[in-house]
Amino acid sequence: MPESKTLYQQISQLVLPHAEEGKSLSPLTVVDDAALLIEKGLVVASGELGQIEKEHDLTNAKRISLHGKSVVPGLIDSHSHVVFAGERMDEMAMRARGDTYESIAQAGGGIVRSVSALESTSLDELVKEARKRIQHMKSLGVTTLEIKSGYGLSPRLEAKQLDAIEILARSEELDIRATILAHVIPKDQRNNRSNYVAEFLSKTLPDAAERSRVYYCDIFVESGAFTPEEATLIAHKAKELGLKLKLHVDQLHDGNGATLAANLGALSADHLEKTNLQGAQALAASNTIATILPGCGLFLGGENWPNARTLRDAGCSVAIATDCNPGSSMVMDLPLCGTMAATQCGLTLEEALWGITRGGAKALGLDDRGTLQVGERADFVVLNHPNWKSIFYTPGAAPIEQVILQGNAIYLSTP
Amino acid sequence: MPESKTLYQQISQLVLPHAEEGKSLSPLTVVDDAALLIEKGLVVASGELGQIEKEHDLTNAKRISLHGKSVVPGLIDSHSHVVFAGERMDEMAMRARGDTYESIAQAGGGIVRSVSALESTSLDELVKEARKRIQHMKSLGVTTLEIKSGYGLSPRLEAKQLDAIEILARSEELDIRATILAHVIPKDQRNNRSNYVAEFLSKTLPDAAERSRVYYCDIFVESGAFTPEEATLIAHKAKELGLKLKLHVDQLHDGNGATLAANLGALSADHLEKTNLQGAQALAASNTIATILPGCGLFLGGENWPNARTLRDAGCSVAIATDCNPGSSMVMDLPLCGTMAATQCGLTLEEALWGITRGGAKALGLDDRGTLQVGERADFVVLNHPNWKSIFYTPGAAPIEQVILQGNAIYLSTP
Repeated sequence: MPESKTLYQQISQLVLPHAEEGKSLSPLTVVDDAALLIEKGLVVASGELGQIEKEHDLTNAKRISLHGKSVVPGLIDSHSHVVFAGERMDEMAMRARGDTYESIAQAGGGIVRSVSALESTSLDELVKEARKRIQHMKSLGVTTLEIKSGYGLSPRLEAKQLDAIEILARSEELDIRATILAHVIPKDQRNNRSNYVAEFLSKTLPDAAERSRVYYCDIFVESGAFTPEEATLIAHKAKELGLKLKLHVDQLHDGNGATLAANLGALSADHLEKTNLQGAQALAASNTIATILPGCGLFLGGENWPNARTLRDAGCSVAIATDCNPGSSMVMDLPLCGTMAATQCGLTLEEALWGITRGGAKALGLDDRGTLQVGERADFVVLNHPNWKSIFYTPGAAPIEQVILQGNAIYLSTP
Repeated sequence: MPESKTLYQQISQLVLPHAEEGKSLSPLTVVDDAALLIEKGLVVASGELGQIEKEHDLTNAKRISLHGKSVVPGLIDSHSHVVFAGERMDEMAMRARGDTYESIAQAGGGIVRSVSALESTSLDELVKEARKRIQHMKSLGVTTLEIKSGYGLSPRLEAKQLDAIEILARSEELDIRATILAHVIPKDQRNNRSNYVAEFLSKTLPDAAERSRVYYCDIFVESGAFTPEEATLIAHKAKELGLKLKLHVDQLHDGNGATLAANLGALSADHLEKTNLQGAQALAASNTIATILPGCGLFLGGENWPNARTLRDAGCSVAIATDCNPGSSMVMDLPLCGTMAATQCGLTLEEALWGITRGGAKALGLDDRGTLQVGERADFVVLNHPNWKSIFYTPGAAPIEQVILQGNAIYLSTP
């Protein structure tokens, strides 16, 4: 990383998300004609140039003008399944003819197909295909990316998927953080669920927890996946092993999953399409972040839009993620998810920006990013537009010009 | 254009939309391992290689393998307002806080702001900004693009907008076709509507009709825009002047606009968000194409998704367009509109592909494109994926590899 000071100045708009979302419809501060001082990959100062010039010696600082551009923190995608084998576009075609997600799964489609594909795909190929997707995500502003396992459903195959995530984390220039996901119980073991859970607790989970890049355990709580009781067992073991907890809840049915996530002290409760008001209130009263995944609404259809306004009005902090996965959200575009969080899910544009930056950081338990305050990582995005709202204005074509990670450009758009 | 024969072969999937949509859920034929023979910018043959080899002398044909790729016709965006001045992202922010499209318009936002911006922007600047957007659309597969006037609201300013469209049509490598749009009546003339309509009939419309690239007259029929009676007057005059008719109808309210469009013999009735069943049946019984604009649903929110399934089930042929405009659909991505036509509006993927190709051609009254049958223009898109459904599978990231217009590559993706 660059050792010397760099001063980005004349930034038309610099967006500084607040550390906590609170009740505000505008949980961020926008500084016009702003500056950002970076040293050793960290933010040394951010805000008005005059103030920074008073407080810092800028004699040897390299100065870069960002006149006509705006700057937002690096985007944080806190929920993805982007390492997978095989595409499932025929299922999309089936849904468009009226089949449901659940009926496709029952007919042998869905997660089971991704498991077979993972088995039959080489590790190299798995990494190669995911790399293209991750690089695309990076070009759209993502600097921190969570990736889940969960297409293995056995200790051996979960390990294969985690190996791929680790290879990508070591070789790609963004901060990739892995999650071991208790996704579903394989069909042939559903009559013996407790055995599967026992193996997950004694082998799959501890194996994963030993890996240095696995920080989280996520559990899919849903009819057809894990019961609240099974999830509670897994959650306790995960915490024992030093993993932080995330939950997939209330996606297809309201199963009081939001309340469960709050009670278990999860970092985040994700999906929440069918969450009831009590669940929203439970999240609001906890430290658990409500994470919405608008890509599922785009991909699966109209009944799958979460109501983020209700969550916010109840007092929740709301993060937004892509859920990029081959079956229910083949969406790599986090800015597009932010647009939809506003237009379909009821957030303001300021809440949407908070949700793809600071909200994502909080959903991952990361306190060193997402606000561009002093001492944070210098992860940020330069938009080729003087107005930061441009990131949401042209769906599918956010004007990302540069993506900076710890002070270094990791993406530059071709003019 | 290349004089010699070119044979594209080993195309993993070649999609040939049917000339008429009919009642089929799959109004297209997919040929596997197919070939496409092009000469002098036209399709000489399309389908199975064996058949083509039997029927044509391929001795001197240049052969290009498209193994692992799929081919669809060039995309046809039959409804856009992409030549405009000024962006309206603050209105997007207002809507996200609960303001409605109509209340924003009444508060001085909306179309009126685009009119002021058109006045104060130089022709050069107008062209320059639109060019970026058009080039982006081209990179997403569009080979034929309709562009409307309508931000002038006076003969002089409508002419300025049409001048810009003409400059772009002459200089950009895709087929741009202009429409004179009767958009709204300026606020200060609403007490004297008949005068405004009279000037439109005697001056604005005839001036536009004299231009060689203006083929269509479009009328926005809506409370706040034109009444059915005014629209009828304008429609008759437009036909007299040799222009073909298109109508914006039933967008914000059901005003029996679909029936009006059918009765007036319009090429297309566009929007249709609130169309009733009678209107759908009237369109089905006519030659008028039902054109849906899912970008408005994405941009304005959930109540703005048209129900394309109802239209199809009633017997309509359905085209899909972007409606790219600064206020209600800042969407340049026609493949994304196709995805949403399936996931939000009820079309099958095959109907969606028909809607962005042959459907668009029919909505523009063009019989020489959209099916890749013998004798048609050789306008097509090469997808970097063996399955044509890939065009809809990754919203915002369609795998467009090459865009070919009359046999020439007008866009090549950088690898």
